[in-house]
Amino acid sequence: MKKIGILTSGGDCSGMNATIRSAVRTALRMDLEIAGFRKGYAGLMKGDAVPLDTKSVSGTLHRGGTFLQSARSPEFRAPEGQQKALANLRSLGVEGLVIIGGDGSLNGALALDRLGFPVIGIPASIDNDIPFTDMALGVDTALNNIIYAVDCIKDTASSHARAFVIEVMGRNSGYLASVSAIACGAEFALVPEREFDLAEICQQLRARYEEGRDNAIIILAEGAGGARQIADSIKDAIGFETRVTVLGHYQRGGAPTVFDRLLGSRFGKRAVELLAQGEQGKMVGLACNEIIATPLEEVVKGSKRPDDDMLRMAEVLGI
Amino acid sequence: MKKIGILTSGGDCSGMNATIRSAVRTALRMDLEIAGFRKGYAGLMKGDAVPLDTKSVSGTLHRGGTFLQSARSPEFRAPEGQQKALANLRSLGVEGLVIIGGDGSLNGALALDRLGFPVIGIPASIDNDIPFTDMALGVDTALNNIIYAVDCIKDTASSHARAFVIEVMGRNSGYLASVSAIACGAEFALVPEREFDLAEICQQLRARYEEGRDNAIIILAEGAGGARQIADSIKDAIGFETRVTVLGHYQRGGAPTVFDRLLGSRFGKRAVELLAQGEQGKMVGLACNEIIATPLEEVVKGSKRPDDDMLRMAEVLGI
Amino acid sequence: MKKIGILTSGGDCSGMNATIRSAVRTALRMDLEIAGFRKGYAGLMKGDAVPLDTKSVSGTLHRGGTFLQSARSPEFRAPEGQQKALANLRSLGVEGLVIIGGDGSLNGALALDRLGFPVIGIPASIDNDIPFTDMALGVDTALNNIIYAVDCIKDTASSHARAFVIEVMGRNSGYLASVSAIACGAEFALVPEREFDLAEICQQLRARYEEGRDNAIIILAEGAGGARQIADSIKDAIGFETRVTVLGHYQRGGAPTVFDRLLGSRFGKRAVELLAQGEQGKMVGLACNEIIATPLEEVVKGSKRPDDDMLRMAEVLGI
Amino acid sequence: MKKIGILTSGGDCSGMNATIRSAVRTALRMDLEIAGFRKGYAGLMKGDAVPLDTKSVSGTLHRGGTFLQSARSPEFRAPEGQQKALANLRSLGVEGLVIIGGDGSLNGALALDRLGFPVIGIPASIDNDIPFTDMALGVDTALNNIIYAVDCIKDTASSHARAFVIEVMGRNSGYLASVSAIACGAEFALVPEREFDLAEICQQLRARYEEGRDNAIIILAEGAGGARQIADSIKDAIGFETRVTVLGHYQRGGAPTVFDRLLGSRFGKRAVELLAQGEQGKMVGLACNEIIATPLEEVVKGSKRPDDDMLRMAEVLGI
Repeated sequence: MKKIGILTSGGDCSGMNATIRSAVRTALRMDLEIAGFRKGYAGLMKGDAVPLDTKSVSGTLHRGGTFLQSARSPEFRAPEGQQKALANLRSLGVEGLVIIGGDGSLNGALALDRLGFPVIGIPASIDNDIPFTDMALGVDTALNNIIYAVDCIKDTASSHARAFVIEVMGRNSGYLASVSAIACGAEFALVPEREFDLAEICQQLRARYEEGRDNAIIILAEGAGGARQIADSIKDAIGFETRVTVLGHYQRGGAPTVFDRLLGSRFGKRAVELLAQGEQGKMVGLACNEIIATPLEEVVKGSKRPDDDMLRMAEVLGI
Repeated sequence: MKKIGILTSGGDCSGMNATIRSAVRTALRMDLEIAGFRKGYAGLMKGDAVPLDTKSVSGTLHRGGTFLQSARSPEFRAPEGQQKALANLRSLGVEGLVIIGGDGSLNGALALDRLGFPVIGIPASIDNDIPFTDMALGVDTALNNIIYAVDCIKDTASSHARAFVIEVMGRNSGYLASVSAIACGAEFALVPEREFDLAEICQQLRARYEEGRDNAIIILAEGAGGARQIADSIKDAIGFETRVTVLGHYQRGGAPTVFDRLLGSRFGKRAVELLAQGEQGKMVGLACNEIIATPLEEVVKGSKRPDDDMLRMAEVLGI
Repeated sequence: MKKIGILTSGGDCSGMNATIRSAVRTALRMDLEIAGFRKGYAGLMKGDAVPLDTKSVSGTLHRGGTFLQSARSPEFRAPEGQQKALANLRSLGVEGLVIIGGDGSLNGALALDRLGFPVIGIPASIDNDIPFTDMALGVDTALNNIIYAVDCIKDTASSHARAFVIEVMGRNSGYLASVSAIACGAEFALVPEREFDLAEICQQLRARYEEGRDNAIIILAEGAGGARQIADSIKDAIGFETRVTVLGHYQRGGAPTVFDRLLGSRFGKRAVELLAQGEQGKMVGLACNEIIATPLEEVVKGSKRPDDDMLRMAEVLGI
Repeated sequence: MKKIGILTSGGDCSGMNATIRSAVRTALRMDLEIAGFRKGYAGLMKGDAVPLDTKSVSGTLHRGGTFLQSARSPEFRAPEGQQKALANLRSLGVEGLVIIGGDGSLNGALALDRLGFPVIGIPASIDNDIPFTDMALGVDTALNNIIYAVDCIKDTASSHARAFVIEVMGRNSGYLASVSAIACGAEFALVPEREFDLAEICQQLRARYEEGRDNAIIILAEGAGGARQIADSIKDAIGFETRVTVLGHYQRGGAPTVFDRLLGSRFGKRAVELLAQGEQGKMVGLACNEIIATPLEEVVKGSKRPDDDMLRMAEVLGI
């Protein structure tokens, strides 16, 4: 193998640059050329590639986002898109590909693998919903971004009699909502995986209020309902002023935490090593502080179990 | 004068604790007793006061919010509410009052002044819409909170072809929106004071896109329209993916900046000195780095002019 | 068991408050009383205890330091000190004790255990030098504090031709220095565990300089030498301007990260559960995301192995 | 005038990129070409210039440091150096120059002015020691960096009986030390402008300790003594454990605050406008929120008066 490629796909997250940087430095150390495809699978289908060297990744380690840019590319799902990508990879002399992204991106990686092209996937998704890795890239930074904002809101919450509804990311996953709720001492976490009864929540809020605890933080995963509607329902039910914050893409950005810089660095290094060793069709992952590799087939079929220990803790801590 | 009171009213902001701390330390140094009324005018009407000393304000300087808590108190607008407050002030032996808050709170202060009770107001409003002060308390911290979040979003914005609509506070005031837009290099600032044509904005976004500049940050004051509707209109008009962030009360909290700690410290000190000198019915303010005092009558009648220099700069910098 | 105690000892770290809060809430949920001893073993020997309830721990989760305060207490090493502590525990009706701290504190815990008093230890040490736990409390926050400062210095480093020597904590441990060096892309990490040749480092700096790379970040564990002397040696050897930063106790403080809030919450909960189940003489720890318990005897005899994967990565990433 | 130049010189600070960006955008809007000289006067003497356009300054607004890099250039003080610079400016067709820097850099600007070359200076110095401007560029960010670190240290300070000596920048200026001391509620600020008696400070520390206030923060300007020696003296005198932090270049970096982004944007815009209007030999400055221009002759002769209001406040607040 003389030359490999790398791309970032789907929703970006903090730590992607650290991952690319490590992959590039590992490749160069192994005398491999490495090319970066811009804007994910879109760049692959267009053959939009740039050669990467130490200088390309200098000064990127502590930047959020991905300097290779990302995109969602529905056309890649079609066989023609995949063939176009394969043709470009071959004409550029690229013999293996590192793909950094979430669910959809790993599906794309599997498609290439099934066509016989050597691919290694790297799990990146702030929802932490990818199986066979304890943590996906970007989760730790997103969580720390969230608590920074919620800590600020708690200052003002404790100054007023009010309920605050804070919407965090997670269309199908309550991970960010429930973990940040524990970490911030929020009163409620509303998640798509578990039904909740708004009337009951209002009743609990009223009971708290009568005990003199006159403010509350409710963390809401976006998939569990609209923040504004929930806030209005609470206000109507109990006459409490409610305020809404929607953290949106703030959660994805910012300088990556130490954890995400290290995780990305380890993932990037191992992915390149695996390609060089002739491995393919696998996703790297973190298990018990070790970097493991799992066939993409299994990853795509699998699903992540909720963390029981976390759920029990939520009960004790009052959520 | 032997004893004064202090309260925080209306929306809280960062720097209120620094203000109270400075007022307390100034009062003690002048051998004045000082009592804090809890939850603004509500506490005044209930006589809910706590004596304050050095220990009460220890460890508060760097905390957001207000440890005296705040509230909106419509009942205080009625003459009966004001008489109740006066009776409490007298029975507690309080001979002068420092009131920290925005528009509505300063109106309340004027009402007490007209009843002959010595009051000094301190302007606190993240909207920076109070006349006779260059800056109100809390503005600088709110602005820095906003740019912290927008900088994070810019990381992810530059990774994708997308428009981001970020809603900041300001029901009647575009100050936070326009200043943070300049400070962040946002593409558009939508404010309640100036009409805007969404169709034209969409056209400009499309033109930018065709030039290859495929992401944009739009900062929206809450009084200028709903973030979600504007985002949807943009998406419908130009097929661009749009993402919404509503910063909400995140803007009010967090550790105050140096500017707000100093401003609050100076305001608190001067307010107590003015009361001790027999002044009343005034609001302290910042003008040319000096602390001035303006009759509350004028403050309440006046209105803040927009900053022309800022507007011209916005043009040059591309907003 | 009806009543337990808790204390924080040795150097404080971020996450101690989260740990105490979780222990308190767990105890109350199990109908156990819980008392906090102030200033570590000193408070134990004086019987300086405060009853803890939900209100005592409200608003503490996101604060650095420890509201129970900490201290080093050489007198506790003597048998008389330990007997005094035992007597106080008994007279207060305390039947089990949670001790949060590092090396020395866990030795103290073992001493109480050997006297037959039920004790559970919680590892807290930013050096991450305690065996039988993947991570000690406070490490993640300290690392993130460090990189925040180093990222700032990198801004200015890339503006100038200069070498920066940044001293981090670690008298006997290079953990913080080496991990933060990887996470920040520093050029050198100097640690007490591995000898280094300053002359060779200067030679490498000169070689880098000749290639046009005219700035460098050197992260130094305090146990590996004085920052000032090393900076002066570099300056003398190669005529490079060198600048020194000593991060000091900045590293210990600040709002804890999500990781430390969760780790502290899990440690605190498990420690109380273990005492309630009649366990004693153990330290809780994190292993493969699970909370385990190891006899204090083994902890005190053991030592933490350096992380080989990390060392290999340091090589690749250029340190 | 068809073409101007810009450079950053001396110690860098946050906000320099915002200044360059604004100068570039203003120049382009006025149909002026603009070239950036790299590494300050060194680049001027070498003719090391790069043409600047919108793209050059894209993504720089929120970065610390200066992408044009900076340097100290003793050779520029000699007439030959200045002649070399002039020759380069002429051969490159540059007809006016914007110089961003502190004391020494403005002296260099005056030298060029005296040789008849149109120059406008922009005051940038975290020491805030440049006359004819209320605030120099970078001061606000440096102050906020300092308090972020000191707030962290206060967490740990309140957990222990200890004194903390924190060294901030300021060889001849106590501005950063005294303002940050007020903003953080430090117990002492030691500055080069005012003599202090270490024995007396120790006595006050002992007295405080006897009253039960067992921790203290001492902020020291680097020009007022070595942090380590002062810490050791305190320890020897009163047996108190003392800890040292030297913030160093951490203070210069990091994302600029809103204030520095706006100040830099206003300075950069005005400097270019002045050159275009045929003004020369002046420095822009901030006075009463307006941008003014003062002859460099006066700036270089003048000196900044200490802020009396600040000093009085320091007394009240307990420093």
